[in-house]
Amino acid sequence: MTYEQLSVGDSASMEKTISESDVYTFADVTGDFNPVHLSKTHAEQSLFGERIAHGMLVGSLFSSVMAMQMPGPGGIYISQSLEFVAPVKFGDTVTATVTIKEKMEKRRVRLACSAVNQRGKVVVQGEAVVLPAK
Amino acid sequence: MTYEQLSVGDSASMEKTISESDVYTFADVTGDFNPVHLSKTHAEQSLFGERIAHGMLVGSLFSSVMAMQMPGPGGIYISQSLEFVAPVKFGDTVTATVTIKEKMEKRRVRLACSAVNQRGKVVVQGEAVVLPAK
Repeated sequence: MTYEQLSVGDSASMEKTISESDVYTFADVTGDFNPVHLSKTHAEQSLFGERIAHGMLVGSLFSSVMAMQMPGPGGIYISQSLEFVAPVKFGDTVTATVTIKEKMEKRRVRLACSAVNQRGKVVVQGEAVVLPAK
Repeated sequence: MTYEQLSVGDSASMEKTISESDVYTFADVTGDFNPVHLSKTHAEQSLFGERIAHGMLVGSLFSSVMAMQMPGPGGIYISQSLEFVAPVKFGDTVTATVTIKEKMEKRRVRLACSAVNQRGKVVVQGEAVVLPAK
């Protein structure tokens, strides 16, 4: 979608159950082998009680929604902020939603980003700025 | 490292050559199949001229440095901001560095994050807030 086709309030989302395989693969690609993600033994003694997904894996779903749906391919990703509000455990189903919050100058759009789990609890939230394709 | 062991100016970094395989695997995990990452034909006609890595893949290296080195395992990731300043092409070698910028209240630390390519050009930059392990 172009800048002109977008309106404040427009939104798009994707839903994904975060698997053990996702987390292990994300660790391989990024080099983040923090035992809270990869070790049951360690994670059981942590604040979270069990292994959790990387926050950046969950945050990357926003990037995916923006690239695949709104504004869609051809957009240029300018910035992203993320707050890691609550843990995502293996098997949790995350719905990541982006909503146009502001049509900015220079044909950019600001999007509110919110990811919730299957109980509707916010797990990651933030904002993105994207320059949609012409 | 604990809050007490950290000083403003302390830094840590990791270096990685971003491969085609990294980008394809990141696409599989996140669902971001934007053709600018996965299609030579599409990318050749884009602003970038060739396929580029996902910005969030590069940004995730900061998370990795913080989890693996400083402050290290056991820290809690509170927030991350990222600006995608320049593209990372397949085969580029990225050095991601985090530097303690501020010791905040509530035993949190603010880290400056900067990723540069093999020519020393900044590709992604931002800030993170982490609660180090006790």
